[in-house]
Amino acid sequence: MTEKLILITNDDGITANGIRALVEVMQDYGKVVVVAPEKPQSAMGHAITITQPLRLTKVDIFGDVEAYACSGTPVDCVKLAVDKVLHRKPDLCVSGVNHGPNSSINVIYSGTMSAAMEASMEGVQAIGFSLLTFNSTADMSEAKRVVKDIIENVLHKGMASCNLLNVNIPNIPYEEIKGIKICKQGEGSWNEAYDERIDPVGRKYYWLTGKFTVLDHGEDTDEWALKNGYVSVVPTQHDLTAYKDVDFLKKKWG
Amino acid sequence: MTEKLILITNDDGITANGIRALVEVMQDYGKVVVVAPEKPQSAMGHAITITQPLRLTKVDIFGDVEAYACSGTPVDCVKLAVDKVLHRKPDLCVSGVNHGPNSSINVIYSGTMSAAMEASMEGVQAIGFSLLTFNSTADMSEAKRVVKDIIENVLHKGMASCNLLNVNIPNIPYEEIKGIKICKQGEGSWNEAYDERIDPVGRKYYWLTGKFTVLDHGEDTDEWALKNGYVSVVPTQHDLTAYKDVDFLKKKWG
Repeated sequence: MTEKLILITNDDGITANGIRALVEVMQDYGKVVVVAPEKPQSAMGHAITITQPLRLTKVDIFGDVEAYACSGTPVDCVKLAVDKVLHRKPDLCVSGVNHGPNSSINVIYSGTMSAAMEASMEGVQAIGFSLLTFNSTADMSEAKRVVKDIIENVLHKGMASCNLLNVNIPNIPYEEIKGIKICKQGEGSWNEAYDERIDPVGRKYYWLTGKFTVLDHGEDTDEWALKNGYVSVVPTQHDLTAYKDVDFLKKKWG
Repeated sequence: MTEKLILITNDDGITANGIRALVEVMQDYGKVVVVAPEKPQSAMGHAITITQPLRLTKVDIFGDVEAYACSGTPVDCVKLAVDKVLHRKPDLCVSGVNHGPNSSINVIYSGTMSAAMEASMEGVQAIGFSLLTFNSTADMSEAKRVVKDIIENVLHKGMASCNLLNVNIPNIPYEEIKGIKICKQGEGSWNEAYDERIDPVGRKYYWLTGKFTVLDHGEDTDEWALKNGYVSVVPTQHDLTAYKDVDFLKKKWG
């Protein structure tokens, strides 16, 4: 069997702890190439860079592993990697490990998940991993064992046909994790509360802050799984059609 | 009946032709407030600004209509508008008219649609409009008649429960438009082909270019509708769960 070509990216930037953890785990599964943002790109969603050119800089921070810092967004990293670094589609794209959760509606804002989604839209099997702590120096050793379990499942038991998994990992010791739960994206909402300040010349400016509320407490949701000590796995798709509303509108507007 | 509060935004920037067209149409339906990016923010997807503060600048370019230029992304505009301008959720959010299509998978990259999606995630009825030409000086008079038709449908025949419509408008005279078609998001793919150049100091840089291919030619898709002279309307949701894969993975990994 030919060796798998594995693309690794993230949104916290190429020097983050989380991506180093992925590089360490994934080397057991094939040839790893890293193309990741040169600086943090959290909450960039599915942004791509079209009004500026992009840069790629080869970096030597992962031992023998070929790695490039990219001036663009996480999605740019995947696109540029396919076209200019790998010169073909990888066999697997792994994104993260994100420092902070991407469960519920946070998947929509997440650069980590958007990078993985971009790969899946190109027909590449892709997995986004996130750890439930924003601590940038978080110990990734427990999370690495979970990543390994998920990869083993994907390789030996099968991937979803949507080609994309959103994996969130509780920040607790591996032994305390109750298992892996296949879930749906739980409904939630952010209530924004901008912090209003005045700059030295007297002009207002605003910092985004907010409070997240879980709206769906069902046991089939990712939020429930994570709250109850499980790793959550949500198979995720890029077809946003609200199919039941297609019929509704056809009837109402027809 | 109390007057409706209508938030208008876009991703081409507050001075674009397309948003002016929306302002002109929507004044017939309630009190209009504009909060839009101070500069073009195309392809920003669902990006939000978390590492920099945001600015709002009152601008006087729409006659009597209250309007603000925002330093952030389209999604920032919606969040900031709710919290700091309107001080409540609007009754309707209208985004666009985008200069260029947002059909098929382009909905994923679109700042126009992400702004509308943000509103829908907050429980606000939202519609994104896009015209099928990238011409920034495109005549919007025909598109305005379509916008009016869609708004009339939403107000008098009903909105989808997903609260979000992706409306794309062929760039042809109103009389030649065959009608409004309720569709699903057609499957397609972008094959990126970065234009590689050398800067004056000898370093490589890359411009994104690419070729879009329609993969699903079904008559139920937005791409088919647009190609055949219809306005396409796709009810759009933010639940990305691939439900059929939930069962598949439960069985395979269980």
